[in-house]
Parts: sequence; structure tokens; C-alpha cells
Amino acid sequence: MENFVMYNPTKVLFGKGIINKLGQTVKEYGNRVLLVYGKGSIKKNGIYDQVISQLNSIGAEVFEYSGIKSNPEVSDVNSAAMIGWEKRVDVILAVGGGSVIDSAKYISVTIPGTVGAWAYATGEATPVKNIPLITVLTVAATGTEMNMFAVIQSKNAEEKLGWGHPLLYPKVSFLDPQFTYSVPADYTAYGAVDIIAHSLEAFFGKGESSLSDRFITSIIKEVMHFTPLVLKNPDNYDYRAALLYASTCALNGMLSHGRRGGDWGVHSIGHELSLIYDIAHGASLSIAYPAWLRFHKEKAKERISYLGRELFNVEDPEETISRLENFFKSIGSPIRLKEAGINEDQHKKLYSLFVKNKVGGSNYTLKNSDYKTIIELMVNG
Amino acid sequence: MENFVMYNPTKVLFGKGIINKLGQTVKEYGNRVLLVYGKGSIKKNGIYDQVISQLNSIGAEVFEYSGIKSNPEVSDVNSAAMIGWEKRVDVILAVGGGSVIDSAKYISVTIPGTVGAWAYATGEATPVKNIPLITVLTVAATGTEMNMFAVIQSKNAEEKLGWGHPLLYPKVSFLDPQFTYSVPADYTAYGAVDIIAHSLEAFFGKGESSLSDRFITSIIKEVMHFTPLVLKNPDNYDYRAALLYASTCALNGMLSHGRRGGDWGVHSIGHELSLIYDIAHGASLSIAYPAWLRFHKEKAKERISYLGRELFNVEDPEETISRLENFFKSIGSPIRLKEAGINEDQHKKLYSLFVKNKVGGSNYTLKNSDYKTIIELMVNG
Repeated sequence: MENFVMYNPTKVLFGKGIINKLGQTVKEYGNRVLLVYGKGSIKKNGIYDQVISQLNSIGAEVFEYSGIKSNPEVSDVNSAAMIGWEKRVDVILAVGGGSVIDSAKYISVTIPGTVGAWAYATGEATPVKNIPLITVLTVAATGTEMNMFAVIQSKNAEEKLGWGHPLLYPKVSFLDPQFTYSVPADYTAYGAVDIIAHSLEAFFGKGESSLSDRFITSIIKEVMHFTPLVLKNPDNYDYRAALLYASTCALNGMLSHGRRGGDWGVHSIGHELSLIYDIAHGASLSIAYPAWLRFHKEKAKERISYLGRELFNVEDPEETISRLENFFKSIGSPIRLKEAGINEDQHKKLYSLFVKNKVGGSNYTLKNSDYKTIIELMVNG
Repeated sequence: MENFVMYNPTKVLFGKGIINKLGQTVKEYGNRVLLVYGKGSIKKNGIYDQVISQLNSIGAEVFEYSGIKSNPEVSDVNSAAMIGWEKRVDVILAVGGGSVIDSAKYISVTIPGTVGAWAYATGEATPVKNIPLITVLTVAATGTEMNMFAVIQSKNAEEKLGWGHPLLYPKVSFLDPQFTYSVPADYTAYGAVDIIAHSLEAFFGKGESSLSDRFITSIIKEVMHFTPLVLKNPDNYDYRAALLYASTCALNGMLSHGRRGGDWGVHSIGHELSLIYDIAHGASLSIAYPAWLRFHKEKAKERISYLGRELFNVEDPEETISRLENFFKSIGSPIRLKEAGINEDQHKKLYSLFVKNKVGGSNYTLKNSDYKTIIELMVNG
């Protein structure tokens, strides 16, 4: 077991009606609020009104930045940070899924900083201050509501980057399973894939950690059990709650205790797919994971067999991969590039992005010569 | 799923050699240190010297209180608090197992308070301030290193009480598996029982929480796998590390997410056994759990069968209880009153303590008329 630190300063309030505590929580941090959200679905499903009602109840001054894209762009972050800076906001309130919260994390350090947000993503700059961040989560997928990581892309730089810093922990996150009822079937499935992918990234990290392995397969089993139930009963509280709780546990740090972090190679592949085709993050992962597992089938034989035994009661790695792939398919997430609209004429571009952005993981590294095989496996399985 | 809060402010540093960070960590809180420990085993195994060397390296002024008993007494807490108050200590450093850390938690609120420690235990007083607490854990068992609970007894009042308050969270806890090498076989086994018992208390709490159930059985499986290995190889780092990490997870709050806390009926039974005979906490639990499970065999049938399927691949509740009991026996922990030295002439006294202290859990309540059956089950199984 590797040395590790157990620590997470984010407070998660989980459950039915916890939004009623939002006003008093925001008030602890101040009166001037930058409200960040996406393309307006929160106005259709009533979450926006509940949030505004809470902010009105404490007499907050609210400044809005909306339109965060599902693959969040650094240009939005910089524009929002400019508003936050001009208005001297005390607190940022992010209402949405991973893209909104990740953007808000960047905004929180960009407002009091001296550089644009991309400089943090690339490691050229390190933040020294932040504006406190509170989140209201609306999708079960990301885990960002309880960690210090954020992913952002720059179409300009043709790069999508993950970055972590302790200043990025939200202060408080509000998780009401009811707020995920209106997530459509496809994004519910992509979220489920994302939760499984986070668990697997931890599983394939460097080092041995027996209890972490058990927690990891616990979460994957939970997602495999509840996702089909949620798809059939999108307004069932307990089913949605199970997915939402699993999503937070999958990426709040606990699954990597005893290891040197996760591998994250599959996420780096997925990020390139999203760059090339604006494909949903979870959809990119259900394509990339089977290919990656098949590529490492020999090297990771023991690990894949462990998953097979725990998840499907099978021993054979190929059988395990097929079962996982079939699960992704059964919930409606794509498993081949073509299904996501990426055709043969884009494979060359994809390859060059892999090379340029040095796609690979911290434990299972990839060479340029491996990329063609990986792409081939994403085409034909 | 019940509403819940995910939050734990304690920072745990886990791993080989992390004691080297103790000095700088203590220094963040001040220079005047109240060092609390037990009956001196830390002087034999070299941990005391390592701690003192760290404190010397920052030029700390150290005031010691030693002699905390394995069933900690409120009189020790008050005596230690008096020293801490007289010496105006900045920080408390607890080096030991559950009894030492629980005592230090009481000391931390008693020093700046206006009442004796027992008033907190009984709920007559509520603390408003504390002295920061840092812990160095030396036994895998308790979970107190990462939670806001403490148990203490008063021989005088004939009562052993658990109590929780957010001021009781340690600031930082140091967990080096090497520091548990010298724990003898019997106390290693009692610790293992304690970890399983904490997991089961969470399991039998009110409400349904599927992922918590999976985490709970993950921990129990881990303990059942590694305890026999530790007993055979007491100096194996990875085995000791597995038990130590499991012990923290079993009582840092995570196992009760989605439920209204645990049941804690078995712990309340165990506390009475310790009062009457000064029996080790874990030993009291390996006697009490089989009896409690047999008593609730019908009412908790579904729950016990879930455990049976997960832990032993059996369905029958009685078979499940026997297997668990056999595990306790196999690692050398007592399963009947007689094995712990409690004989027939003390049963009446035990019964009257059960009645006086209203033994029972929050979910599975017990009536006075049930106590005789429970005692009978602790005698004969």
C-alpha cells in the first residue's frame, strides 16, 4: 500500500429538499453572488427559480453568467471571471453538471488572479487565492462537486486538460436527487459511464490497495444495478439517489487511497474524442474503455480478471470486456467511433491529436506506435 | 435513502514514516503540548522516543499525562485536563489507541470549559471551545482518529457512555501501520472484532442505503481476510496497513451515509460487560454480537441473510451467525460470557445494569423483558 492522505474539506448536503438551506449557506460567504449555469435547462425544470428564491430570501445581489457548454471552453471561463472581477463578487454559485462546476472552479481562481484561466490548466501559473465556490449539482456523473479537479478545453489550443489544486474544492455542495429527474436518458447513461470510468481509472492506478478495490467494484456494481432502473423510472427518488451518491464517491478521492492516484489514460483518450467531435464526455469513455482494456488485455490480465470475477462472475479478460461493453450498449451509450459520428476521414486527425497531446496514463503508458491500434480497436472492437 | 451530510474535517496522514511530519504539524498549533498516553507500552516499542524526538525538533514544551486505562475513566480525564489548564497548553497530542484518543477528546473540551468531563458525557453540558487535538494511532480498531465521538466510563456512576460533538474531531491523525506491529495477538483480534462491530452497527441502522451496504460488507470481508494473516505475520506492513485503513473507514462516518446513524445496541451491551468485568471492548463485542443477532433473528432476517450471502455465500440467518461467531473464535476472541470470566453469580448484576442504563439500540430497541434472553444467549449461544 502506498502512503496517502485522507482529507476532503468539501461539505456535501445530500437529500430531498436540502435546497432550502442554500440561502443561509451562501450568506455565510457574502452578499454579492456570481451565478454560473449552462444553456438554460435549469430554467425549464424549475431549479433556477428555486435557486433565485433562495438568493432573494437573503437579499443577495446576483450577477449571472450562463451558456457554459457541455464541453466547457476556456473563453467562457475568462468572460465569466471578468464579470466576477468587475462586480467584486463574494461567492460563486455554480448550478449544473460537471462542465458548469469545472468552469466555476476555474472562474474562482481566475477572478482574484493575474493571468487567464488557460495558464492554470497548462501549469504555467499557480493560483494563490480564490473566491469561495458553492455548487448545486444537477447530474450524477462528475464527482467534481467534492474534489479539487477541473477539466477544461481550448478549441484554440486544440487541447482538453484536467488540472487539480486544493483551492478548487467547493465549500459546500447541494445534492438533491430530485434535481436529476429531468436529465434525459442519453445523458443519464453517459453519466453512468462516467462514474464507472472514474472507478476504473482508480482501479488501474499504481500500487496495491485491497479495500480500495472492494470499494471500486462496489460502486460499479451499484451503477450497473441502478442505471437500468433509473432509465425505466426516471422520477424514482431512491434510484436517482443511488446513482448520485455513487457518482460523488467515485471521484472524491477515496477510491485512490493506497495508490498513487489513478491511471487516467482512458480519460485522456476520451478528451481527444470530445475535442474532435464535441461528443459527450461519458459517450467518449464508453468507446475508449473497451478499446483500452483490449489493448492492455495481456499486461492487465490479473486486474481485468479481478473485475470479471467481482462484476460478472467470469474469469476470462475478453469475456469481462465484452460484458462491460454490452452493459454500455444496453443503456444506450456508444461503444464504437462510428456510433458517435466519428468516421474514417477523421482518424488521421485523431491520431495527430493523440501524438500532439501525448495521450496516455500514469500507470499504463502509451507510445505513439500504440495509438493506431487503440484507434483501430475503437473502430472495430 | 435518508438525507445525510458528507463531511469530515480531520486530515489523516497514512503510511510508512509519516511520523516525520509530526513536529511541523504540531508547530502549526503551538509550542505548549499536553502529551497523553496509556500505560507505557509506547516506551517499550520505541514510539514514545520517536514522538519526543519530533517534539524536541520544534523546541516544544511538553507536559505529560500517562496511565490512561484501556477502559478509560473520567477521573483520568479530569486530572489530565487540570494539568492542561494549569500549563496553558496550545495543543493536545494523544499517542495510543481508542481509550487514549477518546480521553484526549474529552480533555480537549474540558480544559477550556467550566464543568467536569462527565457533564459532557451525560449531556448536562455542551462544550463551546476546545484545544486542538492531534493523534498518533497505535492500534487498528477504534475509528476515533477520524470522527467526533468518544466513549468514557465512570466506575462511580456505573456507566460507560458514548458521546459525539463536532469539536471532538482531531485536527490531524498520524497512522503508520508499523506502529501497530507490537499490538499483541489478543488485542489485534479484539481490534478486528471492533472494526466488524462498527460496520455492523452501521448496517443495522434505520433506513435503506444500498451503496453503504456494499461498503460495509467490503470492510468486513477485508477484516476477515487480513486478520488471520496479521496474526500469523504481525510485522507484515501490507497486512497491518489493510487492517488499519479498514478500521478508520469503519467509523469515520461514511458507512452511515443514507441512514439515520447506526443502531449501537450491541455496543451498549458491550459497554456494560466492560463495566462489570473490565473486559476489553472488542472482546465484549464478540460475545454480544452473536447473542444480539440470534435475538433479532426473525425481525432482522432479511438483513442477516444479506450478510450471509455477501460474507459466506449462505442464505440461512442461523448459519450466518454461526459463521461469524466461528470467525471470532478462530482469531481468539471470546464468544461466551464464561470465556471472559463473567460467571453465573454476576448475571443478576449484569441484568440490573442493563435495566439501569437502558441498554438498546436506536433502530432495534430492547425491552427489560428482553435482557434475560440476551444474557442467556451470551451464556449458551
